[in-house]
Amino acid sequence: MGLVVQKYGGSSVADAEGIKRVAKRVVDAKRNGNQVVVVVSAMGDTTDELIDLAEQVSPMPTGREFDMLLTAGERISMALLAMAIKNLGHEAQSFTGSQAGVITDSVHNKARIIDVTPGRIRTSIDEGNIAIVAGFQGVSQEGKNITTLGRGGSDTTAVALAAALAAEVCEIYTDVDGVFTADPRVVKKAKKIDWISFEDMLELAASGSKVLLHRCVEYARRYNIPIHVRSSFSGLRGTWVSNEPQGDQQVEHAIISGVAHDVSEAKVTVVGVPDKPGEAAAIFRAIADAEVNIDMVVQNVSAASTGLTDISFTLPKAEGRKAIDALERTKASIGFDSLRYDDQIAKISLVGAGMKTNPGVTAGFFEALSDAGVNIELISTSEIRISVVTRADDVNEAVRAVHTAFGLDSDSDEAVVYGGTGR
Amino acid sequence: MGLVVQKYGGSSVADAEGIKRVAKRVVDAKRNGNQVVVVVSAMGDTTDELIDLAEQVSPMPTGREFDMLLTAGERISMALLAMAIKNLGHEAQSFTGSQAGVITDSVHNKARIIDVTPGRIRTSIDEGNIAIVAGFQGVSQEGKNITTLGRGGSDTTAVALAAALAAEVCEIYTDVDGVFTADPRVVKKAKKIDWISFEDMLELAASGSKVLLHRCVEYARRYNIPIHVRSSFSGLRGTWVSNEPQGDQQVEHAIISGVAHDVSEAKVTVVGVPDKPGEAAAIFRAIADAEVNIDMVVQNVSAASTGLTDISFTLPKAEGRKAIDALERTKASIGFDSLRYDDQIAKISLVGAGMKTNPGVTAGFFEALSDAGVNIELISTSEIRISVVTRADDVNEAVRAVHTAFGLDSDSDEAVVYGGTGR
Repeated sequence: MGLVVQKYGGSSVADAEGIKRVAKRVVDAKRNGNQVVVVVSAMGDTTDELIDLAEQVSPMPTGREFDMLLTAGERISMALLAMAIKNLGHEAQSFTGSQAGVITDSVHNKARIIDVTPGRIRTSIDEGNIAIVAGFQGVSQEGKNITTLGRGGSDTTAVALAAALAAEVCEIYTDVDGVFTADPRVVKKAKKIDWISFEDMLELAASGSKVLLHRCVEYARRYNIPIHVRSSFSGLRGTWVSNEPQGDQQVEHAIISGVAHDVSEAKVTVVGVPDKPGEAAAIFRAIADAEVNIDMVVQNVSAASTGLTDISFTLPKAEGRKAIDALERTKASIGFDSLRYDDQIAKISLVGAGMKTNPGVTAGFFEALSDAGVNIELISTSEIRISVVTRADDVNEAVRAVHTAFGLDSDSDEAVVYGGTGR
Repeated sequence: MGLVVQKYGGSSVADAEGIKRVAKRVVDAKRNGNQVVVVVSAMGDTTDELIDLAEQVSPMPTGREFDMLLTAGERISMALLAMAIKNLGHEAQSFTGSQAGVITDSVHNKARIIDVTPGRIRTSIDEGNIAIVAGFQGVSQEGKNITTLGRGGSDTTAVALAAALAAEVCEIYTDVDGVFTADPRVVKKAKKIDWISFEDMLELAASGSKVLLHRCVEYARRYNIPIHVRSSFSGLRGTWVSNEPQGDQQVEHAIISGVAHDVSEAKVTVVGVPDKPGEAAAIFRAIADAEVNIDMVVQNVSAASTGLTDISFTLPKAEGRKAIDALERTKASIGFDSLRYDDQIAKISLVGAGMKTNPGVTAGFFEALSDAGVNIELISTSEIRISVVTRADDVNEAVRAVHTAFGLDSDSDEAVVYGGTGR
């Protein structure tokens, strides 16, 4: 008998019908002889509605109380799911993050899991119950306050529980059929990936793929928990993410796993920076002190005539204002000329472990973009990823061109099966 | 510096505006130099909406999960209230029933508080915070499961916390101005009571007055915690409930506190019961085994010719079916003739400690009803209460007649100030 952790997102449990459909799926897994632990998100738009209420009573909702508020959402969905499962004749018990032993640090709104002590969950499933656990939430080691894990936190809850319980697999149910070679909304011929390595999945997540978040994949890799991403609507086999392919898991694209894109970033250019030691450090210290996360960083060689250089970096648009303010405050001490802010950019990334040993990949990527008439503004590479920044207007065409150039297109015209929400 | 526990009901925190209004009131109490602990119910119709969801996924929602579900409501309101208070520049921390140390038995959906260990609340207020506590909920001593206290449970939470913290007063904020000499919807000339004893308040609550529930008053009496019932809308002085009047608390009606009525009960008559020892016991054992709570019980003397008697009792209409079924099953063994079920009845009660030493009260009560043409079907008395059962159609006229006969009418025509909901 195996132990399976299943995670269902908000769109899968958006209403009573969704909860009943999920209950059937959970019971099926139990009937197949597994011990089953289910991690569940808040129903549909519940979290957004709670945030809206918070903003009505306070312009700056604070950490501890905001977490207390948001965690009500999972409490509702998990209790309803437990009831729906009982109604199908199986025993179920629901547990808050705190009850499930999800111990975090004290950073409200984006806490990190530091330990999982799943004693109550273990007892519950050993007694024959299906255990339902609230995703996205935990309790702080110091202070015993309720915390939330930030965006995509329920996936991390699921993987962390799977690790602590030594589960065979962590199944992430969502509203798409799996991980695709590109965003199927952009590339009609995108193919569902049957198996992908943790490494490639990490790069895709870092490059704009929304299906799994970086933190969740990182956790799964550290504890070697295979993830199976699949649709809660279609029930089809989805995408396996693990160290090595198992059994019949197919590895179709030895070189390239997929093309990701991201239009949520902006580009800041610091113009006229004196080209001497310590200048770049001062700039990025100012950014870090403002708690802004940056992504790509590019510095051009300085013009010999002036001794000045330009430094560009990308960052989430939402943090643009903060970064600009922080830099303006240090303009005099650092001594640059000016700042340029550009939020009409897109990042396009090609990911695949195979490119390590295939020197033609970079050239092929640039040629495909060039043939499509797409201008490249910044380039950044890792061992298994190449990313470029282009104009935002060019993004769809660029992704399609690269997808085709690397032979990722599927034979059928419409490969994607979407779930109920059409997201 | 005093310690005040305030409780706000669902209608007081029905929306963002209500929460902000309550926040101001809480901050006022803090500014007046008090330590403040606030107990809050779920917003407006939240609990009903959650119950509705539960019924959509399961026809018979079970205890443990149902409690987990319902407690999400207070979690939302308390977090929002804490944010609203912080927004006014004061420190506030919210606590679940479990965090506040509200320990209960394991009877889900109607748990009883068996202990309160308010260590975290004490620490929080000693550090200068306003502590916000979720009403209606606790955690079971065995199993550490989330429990709810049943209808009106938030009032009990407030009184229990006030007792555990040795508060000076427990303020119950509601949508009416206090306790009245009769239901102001029925008696336009009903007067707000300035002070009432625990004993009289207990009898009023048992007789149909909805402002405070019996369990809450009982708890307050046991620990001698004065209750101040008042409106969260008007801010006027309300009704004090305590052992003895203090300071300027007025005791206007030495004999009679008020008239209560109740149309939520039905009457069962067991016809033709053999008048011999053990028959009544067998009947009420059957009722008790069905977990039906009964109220009044009346047995007439038996007719000498037949040796048979009739036994009547009243019970909540909602439990009528259960009681009838239980009795039908034991008909043969008990040996009565038939059952009569009547849900078109009303109970009218006159309450006042003064009636102990005023023998004319009973006579005056019956005369007033007789003058109003109201027929009496059952009579039951305690030391400080007389209750009668009449036809439901007669209830308003009967209450008004009794109210006038005992000099309770106010001079003004419209004594009542209702809050925002008009309930």
